[in-house]
Amino acid sequence: MIEHELSGRHLINGEWKSSPQDGAFSAINPATGAALMPVFLEAGQTEVDAAMKAARDAFEAAQDLPTGWQAGLLDAIADAVMDLGESLLNRAQEESGLPPPRLIGERARTVGQLKMFAQVVREGSWVDAVIDTADPERKPAPKPDIRRMLRPRGPVVVFGASNFPLAFGTIGGDSTSALAAGNPVVVKGHPSHPGTSELVAAAILSAMKSCNVPLGLFALLQGKSHQLSQMLVNHPAAEAVGFTGSQRAGRALFDLAAKRPKPIPVFAEMGSLNPIVILPAAASERGDAIAEGLAGSVLLGGGQFCTKPGVILTIGDDTKFVSKFAETIQKTASVTMLNPGLRDNFATCTTNFAKVPGVKTRIEPKSGTAAAMSPGLFETDAKTWQKEHRLHEEAFGPGALVIHCKDVDEAIACLKSVEGSLTGSIHIGKGEDAKTTQRVLRAMEPNVGRVVINGFPTGVEVNNAIVHGGPYPATTDPGTTSVGSAAIRRFVRLVAYQDTPQQLLPPALRDDNPLHIERTVNGKRTTAAI
Amino acid sequence: MIEHELSGRHLINGEWKSSPQDGAFSAINPATGAALMPVFLEAGQTEVDAAMKAARDAFEAAQDLPTGWQAGLLDAIADAVMDLGESLLNRAQEESGLPPPRLIGERARTVGQLKMFAQVVREGSWVDAVIDTADPERKPAPKPDIRRMLRPRGPVVVFGASNFPLAFGTIGGDSTSALAAGNPVVVKGHPSHPGTSELVAAAILSAMKSCNVPLGLFALLQGKSHQLSQMLVNHPAAEAVGFTGSQRAGRALFDLAAKRPKPIPVFAEMGSLNPIVILPAAASERGDAIAEGLAGSVLLGGGQFCTKPGVILTIGDDTKFVSKFAETIQKTASVTMLNPGLRDNFATCTTNFAKVPGVKTRIEPKSGTAAAMSPGLFETDAKTWQKEHRLHEEAFGPGALVIHCKDVDEAIACLKSVEGSLTGSIHIGKGEDAKTTQRVLRAMEPNVGRVVINGFPTGVEVNNAIVHGGPYPATTDPGTTSVGSAAIRRFVRLVAYQDTPQQLLPPALRDDNPLHIERTVNGKRTTAAI
Repeated sequence: MIEHELSGRHLINGEWKSSPQDGAFSAINPATGAALMPVFLEAGQTEVDAAMKAARDAFEAAQDLPTGWQAGLLDAIADAVMDLGESLLNRAQEESGLPPPRLIGERARTVGQLKMFAQVVREGSWVDAVIDTADPERKPAPKPDIRRMLRPRGPVVVFGASNFPLAFGTIGGDSTSALAAGNPVVVKGHPSHPGTSELVAAAILSAMKSCNVPLGLFALLQGKSHQLSQMLVNHPAAEAVGFTGSQRAGRALFDLAAKRPKPIPVFAEMGSLNPIVILPAAASERGDAIAEGLAGSVLLGGGQFCTKPGVILTIGDDTKFVSKFAETIQKTASVTMLNPGLRDNFATCTTNFAKVPGVKTRIEPKSGTAAAMSPGLFETDAKTWQKEHRLHEEAFGPGALVIHCKDVDEAIACLKSVEGSLTGSIHIGKGEDAKTTQRVLRAMEPNVGRVVINGFPTGVEVNNAIVHGGPYPATTDPGTTSVGSAAIRRFVRLVAYQDTPQQLLPPALRDDNPLHIERTVNGKRTTAAI
Repeated sequence: MIEHELSGRHLINGEWKSSPQDGAFSAINPATGAALMPVFLEAGQTEVDAAMKAARDAFEAAQDLPTGWQAGLLDAIADAVMDLGESLLNRAQEESGLPPPRLIGERARTVGQLKMFAQVVREGSWVDAVIDTADPERKPAPKPDIRRMLRPRGPVVVFGASNFPLAFGTIGGDSTSALAAGNPVVVKGHPSHPGTSELVAAAILSAMKSCNVPLGLFALLQGKSHQLSQMLVNHPAAEAVGFTGSQRAGRALFDLAAKRPKPIPVFAEMGSLNPIVILPAAASERGDAIAEGLAGSVLLGGGQFCTKPGVILTIGDDTKFVSKFAETIQKTASVTMLNPGLRDNFATCTTNFAKVPGVKTRIEPKSGTAAAMSPGLFETDAKTWQKEHRLHEEAFGPGALVIHCKDVDEAIACLKSVEGSLTGSIHIGKGEDAKTTQRVLRAMEPNVGRVVINGFPTGVEVNNAIVHGGPYPATTDPGTTSVGSAAIRRFVRLVAYQDTPQQLLPPALRDDNPLHIERTVNGKRTTAAI
């Protein structure tokens, strides 16, 4: 067991560091509104400089560690997170209002991600080694030997999300994939759950010590202020940023990073409408089952999933389907949202929906005590939705908007004007016209990162094939994913070595292939030595 | 043979389009200063809108073409470029001042790139298909079937470079890799060689017609103004930008693209110092040969290569080496630079070098008629170089700066403060200390995209392993390369399909693997069907 008494301090280069009292804050229990002990300190420029310097030094020092050192560290972190035991689950519940089964599942996902990336690193082929050997006889000029691979970028700044205090938090997908690539990570903990962040940081510290790696490889800075975020993104030693959160915050960090003397990428995963289309035959063949499944997906985690289907496109006579859907939604009396701020945002956004002429409030969402909110359901028509930008806002929370489309053409027009989303789903009946189905898919696909057929987008698999990404504003880079093994590709750069002697090459590129990894040698994929 | 009479117009959606006379311009022969016929029109918003709309429509229409249609088009373009025959070489020579052997070689590289990418597309595995199949029995929740692949992004805007009118021009590396991924391309031709651009566009038009593809897949807009560049980057239909040129222009486009309501990536390949270190034993064992090779590399193409070694680090007593180097440089009387503007920039930059206290002008560069320039050579010490930002400017043209380092530690300090570069080279002697060599490499590697040992960085191989990229300011994205088959990765996005019926999946992801490509299925690389 790892026992750690919360200190309210920052973890910098292996030590728990104090900072001035200005801006100190407490976590709030969203179920009760009560402040939780202890008080957490707000990091400033001193802490940012110290954490980034330690990260830069650790990045250099890590060159002396054996190849694949990341695997042992990630496994040790996974074990240490489990070793936090009930203390982690209890604190996460107090800070997030999420029920224990959800947190147990989320912890399993977090630990699973760590172990998956450890396996990716141990297997080793992720470095994408490509070798084109020399031909000294080539005319008119001899052909040099060129070998390339992926290398870590350097210190990565990670902003934890509010809605997954573990799986997208201090050692969530961003931190894990950045570490897996060999980068030091400096996390700004989400101020909604600073205690959860500190406990996880304590687990990481314990793992770093047991693995005997430079302690600057991981830092946790606590804070609420925009200034802290800005200091981190602007620090010259930062080479990349991972972010999960709102479109406004993500865009602000992206803009800041783009304006630096040396710009750095911000891989931000932000808001998403996640359109879902119910084709007519699907509605008639299994409308009740779809309505129930959909309601479950909309309300999962209090509707606070990035992949929540927020916009539901029905076609033609949808009375029966929408009634069943509304009835199922109505059964959920109230949810505890992650924090009062998110609750208020949801209330404002849905109040704005209700004000739009042409929008019908089917179920009115109502704020309760602390961060409580009852679900909402709104309806409109395709024309109104297309022309009203307010209706394209993501209502992050327990609610959805049904768009009644007269026919498939109206649905396709809506799909073409939907903003970039993480997901897009289509429910297809056996009686559907194949050509129509194809047209709907083609209209949807360019605007989403993941297409889901006859299912619901919430509940993201963590594997090799998953894409948790999508065109802006879902993310800032549709060429990447923040979930699954491909997430590691965000935090690397390409380096080639020309005519480099064996002893100077990284092991992954040496003739004898000491790591036994798959490589592309002269155009052929092989594990053989050269 | 393709015969095309230069019109001075733009190629938009398969037609040669006129635009208003405002801003019309001529190419200048850099060897004589004479204006070349005809006059070229400057594109405006009307032409930008028309080209981008055609590109967007062509992107949609291309979904109906058979998988791998790009291969046939790229091969046809390669043939058509050759079919332009002498007319292309003659015009390129008149517009660039580059000698025929160089242009013949550059044409071969251009055609080689087109054929290499055609082969990449035909082979098909570049889409990086990854499939994780379903497990309906999994507990607690059934495992869905998820399949992902790389898909084209949409219309790509390409800015041709001045220094490679063919290989980085209208159908250079950026256009070729963007088309290979299946994206429409809108090229802004470089105003130094508009006739060369128009001839190449005519070849592309002929190839598009023979392949029966949508003619909006390629457009050429001519112009000199910044406004035109801005209109292209700001156009809502643009999904990515490829650029090769100066740091100032590249950064301006990057900033513009980052500020869009929907930001898009600018893959800019810009200036680079390309440091080269001559270790003491190398200088003593084969100093003359290195000095001669280095002079050839510095002056290749008039010193107007992105990979020119601009900063030469010598260690200890380098008198003999530098004398030989200077003597070899001195033998080249004068070169014709690509245009008078570049010549003037080089003159200004080197004049600034000479003004710095602690800098010695070993060979003074002199401007001649039209765009002529004689080579320059400057010397300084490590301390002066480190503190003088003016000496970190890229002198694009026939010249270099030698930095005398007292010892290896001084050289390492310089390498650590060198700006991100495309390349870094080290000459190592047999008598060198292995630990020192390793230290030098470690100091250099984080700041470069390609390490070259005992060679020179100019003359970039076009293959699978090459990296023509590097940390900022060499490029805007060190995770990418603009040369070699990996360049295609810039212009794609990730898309996953969950539980999607076979007939709705792209062929690359279907069970029977109709394209016979290598895929990763449940973690194993295979060409087998599922």
